[in-house]
Amino acid sequence: MKLATLRNGTPDGALIVVSSDASRFLAAGSIAPTMQAALEHWPGAAPALQECAARLEAGAGVPLDAQMLAAPLPRAWQWLDGSAFDTHGRLMTRLFGIQAQHSGRPLMYQGLSHQFLGPSDDVPLPRESDDIDFEGEFAVVTDAVPMGVSPAVAATHIKLVMLVNDWSLRALARDEMKTGFGWVQAKPACSAAGVAVTPDALGTGWAHERVQLRLRVEVNGTTFGEPHGGEMSVGFADLIAHAAATRSLCAGTIIGSGTVSNADYATTGSTCIAERRAIETLEGGAPSTHFLRFGDRVRMCAVDEAGQSPFGAIDQRIVRAHIPWADDPAGAPH
Amino acid sequence: MKLATLRNGTPDGALIVVSSDASRFLAAGSIAPTMQAALEHWPGAAPALQECAARLEAGAGVPLDAQMLAAPLPRAWQWLDGSAFDTHGRLMTRLFGIQAQHSGRPLMYQGLSHQFLGPSDDVPLPRESDDIDFEGEFAVVTDAVPMGVSPAVAATHIKLVMLVNDWSLRALARDEMKTGFGWVQAKPACSAAGVAVTPDALGTGWAHERVQLRLRVEVNGTTFGEPHGGEMSVGFADLIAHAAATRSLCAGTIIGSGTVSNADYATTGSTCIAERRAIETLEGGAPSTHFLRFGDRVRMCAVDEAGQSPFGAIDQRIVRAHIPWADDPAGAPH
Repeated sequence: MKLATLRNGTPDGALIVVSSDASRFLAAGSIAPTMQAALEHWPGAAPALQECAARLEAGAGVPLDAQMLAAPLPRAWQWLDGSAFDTHGRLMTRLFGIQAQHSGRPLMYQGLSHQFLGPSDDVPLPRESDDIDFEGEFAVVTDAVPMGVSPAVAATHIKLVMLVNDWSLRALARDEMKTGFGWVQAKPACSAAGVAVTPDALGTGWAHERVQLRLRVEVNGTTFGEPHGGEMSVGFADLIAHAAATRSLCAGTIIGSGTVSNADYATTGSTCIAERRAIETLEGGAPSTHFLRFGDRVRMCAVDEAGQSPFGAIDQRIVRAHIPWADDPAGAPH
Repeated sequence: MKLATLRNGTPDGALIVVSSDASRFLAAGSIAPTMQAALEHWPGAAPALQECAARLEAGAGVPLDAQMLAAPLPRAWQWLDGSAFDTHGRLMTRLFGIQAQHSGRPLMYQGLSHQFLGPSDDVPLPRESDDIDFEGEFAVVTDAVPMGVSPAVAATHIKLVMLVNDWSLRALARDEMKTGFGWVQAKPACSAAGVAVTPDALGTGWAHERVQLRLRVEVNGTTFGEPHGGEMSVGFADLIAHAAATRSLCAGTIIGSGTVSNADYATTGSTCIAERRAIETLEGGAPSTHFLRFGDRVRMCAVDEAGQSPFGAIDQRIVRAHIPWADDPAGAPH
């Protein structure tokens, strides 16, 4: 089953069920007004939503305009982003010169969750000199998870799968990492593809608590990378168990995979500029790929073997945020 | 004016206005159903809430049972915690052996915000061996703040002031700091005192965007520390501007001061065990104060010159969370 959130002028939008080809939808407000509400009442809501999905496959529904889609959760109570692709970790460690010591424990940070940009929203950022970058990721959405859940039980709490672009400001990231406090300024709001998919509806695209699909990234119409999501060193069940070790997770918690990256990066390419620059530096002594500029477009979609894109595409343009000190670093607050 | 949230079985509780002596309250549901709603519609809500406050001072209202209070925001969309008391930072750096390089920029991390425990809630944690600690902090709550706000304008977005206990698991904190990703497992849900106060209602207790009050911490009935909140190296306006440099903040964002700490710690004591252990180590070669055990009580309140406690007290007991692997580290997820 595929779910999405239609913009309706409210912060959380309206829950809809989307046909498997994403061409049509049915309003689901009588089942749950919002995606968050559906996740909070999943055992009751899911069967009724599945019934809508069946009606859609039988031809019901109205045409879907993808431009009307918000992020599946336009705001979430919690976003915890892992870093489960070891190739990415190794390359970034080399670039940043920081040895992330994690001794077998998953890496994870708590990120901004009060806003997820929709798949076609402009991305307002203050300055090109912050080194604007994208990070292509898969993510899962959980229902309520008790503290101390085992990985095996954690797997049963995965209700939806998403595609996320974790926007990053690299000029700020390194200094924030050095504090040990994690990222605040370096991690503005993420974006999400419009369609959230139940794991079963991904078919062979979901196995071992990993998304078994390629994530294709294009920058200004040119393919940037297309690595496979199956190469996570720990799956989403382990990431959830790690997140819930000392806290309960509320329904609607989003857990990210970290930047999708493959050991065979020479063939697959990367899903962020920083990783490509790290590769360029390792191979040629210096990076040659620039970070993004205002007006640049970044498009991301997952692709299955049939060439279909189950989450739809994130396709956005970077724009200059209208703030007083945007081009005056001296005038910026610390 | 003083506001609070009464438990009513819903996640956000019910907004009430509290008399200045916290003995009585008036329901405010006709103005705004929840604290979050009041913050989202502050220009309209505040005058009506002030009117309730005036009626309370004239003798209206019903008796308030402090046990009925939840945290002012039982869940918030965002919790960004600074570390603005330099004495604490210096001592912790020495203890952890990590040099936090922040070159004049405020230190801040993004914390768990989907749950704030109420002032008399038990604190369920999995293991004593995680080195359970408290951190006494002041915090402010903002309305919506635009990206790139200046510190001067940021000051006008401070709507409420709170008292927070930022529970910390020290055995996990050091390793998480070393990753550069910040804290996830080391920072379970915070607790908050029941009463949120507008800055003007603090009188001389609020100046220079700092809380000019002592924060008294007691452990099992014995005073642990009572440092003053005025010693922040940067005030809350600077912390808000730092937080909003590359993101907008939604209404109901909570910004923390970090652990209250004074240069004269020999006289004032500390508001967390880790800092006291750092002092003991510096002065005597080894720490002698133990971290908390199940059953221990921690009480925090701010005290003004008249001996009044404007936020009420946080008074909680640590309890063992009922999870399968609690006493079996080998069985714990990573």
